Amino acid sequence: MERAVAGRLSAIERISTELIATAELTVQTQGEGFTDITREAASFVEQSGGRDGHLFVYLRHTSASLIIQENADPDVQTDLTTALRLFAPADGPWIHTVEGPDDMPAHIKGMLTGVSLHIPVRAGVLALGTWQGLYLVEHRSKPHRREIVLQFVGSKRA
Amino acid sequence: MERAVAGRLSAIERISTELIATAELTVQTQGEGFTDITREAASFVEQSGGRDGHLFVYLRHTSASLIIQENADPDVQTDLTTALRLFAPADGPWIHTVEGPDDMPAHIKGMLTGVSLHIPVRAGVLALGTWQGLYLVEHRSKPHRREIVLQFVGSKRA
Amino acid sequence: MERAVAGRLSAIERISTELIATAELTVQTQGEGFTDITREAASFVEQSGGRDGHLFVYLRHTSASLIIQENADPDVQTDLTTALRLFAPADGPWIHTVEGPDDMPAHIKGMLTGVSLHIPVRAGVLALGTWQGLYLVEHRSKPHRREIVLQFVGSKRA
Repeated sequence: MERAVAGRLSAIERISTELIATAELTVQTQGEGFTDITREAASFVEQSGGRDGHLFVYLRHTSASLIIQENADPDVQTDLTTALRLFAPADGPWIHTVEGPDDMPAHIKGMLTGVSLHIPVRAGVLALGTWQGLYLVEHRSKPHRREIVLQFVGSKRA
Repeated sequence: MERAVAGRLSAIERISTELIATAELTVQTQGEGFTDITREAASFVEQSGGRDGHLFVYLRHTSASLIIQENADPDVQTDLTTALRLFAPADGPWIHTVEGPDDMPAHIKGMLTGVSLHIPVRAGVLALGTWQGLYLVEHRSKPHRREIVLQFVGSKRA
Repeated sequence: MERAVAGRLSAIERISTELIATAELTVQTQGEGFTDITREAASFVEQSGGRDGHLFVYLRHTSASLIIQENADPDVQTDLTTALRLFAPADGPWIHTVEGPDDMPAHIKGMLTGVSLHIPVRAGVLALGTWQGLYLVEHRSKPHRREIVLQFVGSKRA
């Protein structure tokens, strides 16, 4: 089946891969909800000496997750939390209840939203969209200490 | 707990990382629904001069997303759109309504499906499965201009 | 809007990118449910000669997916399967029914959970959290043979 060209491609830039920079980011959450870690991720890239490439973000937990979403209106985060509660209600037909009524819903929310993502880096800056922020989303009711692995892969600044 | 071996691993190929190639793909959507960008992504890899490695795809928006799904029967895309509407109905209990009844559902759909993914590249070709296509999925009702960052990381063709 | 620092960043380690190692992992599933492929992924990294970097995992199918989730209590996997069935019931309003009542739900589950993810590698070992396992999740009712592309990108062991 023929189809029309879907998009327009810009010129391609080519560089060499030179650097992998790695650090861990520890975040103390305040219970269920969104923690903005965009500034920390940008600071890591700045400190890493990286120029062009990717930031890889990985969360080492199964009842929290990483989400890139709107950073403007806090109501969006409230609604996203509402949506996640509707997907995985505390009173759902779950059999894994030994860790409390918020635990299995947290795993389901984690499964739906994921623990690994990447963001392109251009000229040492995260190439996020205007309205995009990077969030650690806590799905458990109580505060938790969460560990994130940050890695930059790409070229070095001169 | 002992468990059986789950899978069979092939021989491992080893090469050097040499190249990061970057471009932006601009896509004009026609409102809610799927736009196939597989050909554009493959063309980028071809033009990049890359041989083996990965294509990283990143969408710079919060009310659209990237999905790898079946490319054969268009009914699948219809049903995936139906499913996303069921997950995030326009008349859900959302408080972020200032941008219209399709906006908050679009953010929820974006959260569930994500804005960053990668596809392996072997010998300059996307290693997609037989039935896999790469789609930009518009979640807003009206057409939008969407920006995607494409990056190849890997080895160069001779 | 000012906000508090969200997290604490560790020291940054810097290395060179040197190696891309690639292999395919073939997995025979037993029908709907989770297959733990953590050991196979770790074995690949070990055999690859990689030291620090990332493991990229890619599934070449549209009715199965890759999930990082809890590896301790098998009840969690039962509940995750229950949740996926609630999201995409066999008797939903789907029009793509030609491949059987389990096919369209499988595509929806695949869309929600995804086919591409990465795991950081530190000193040749997957930097998974204590309770994290890597799973191939089969969404079809019958057993299937599934192909996964594994790629390590990073530095070499001395």
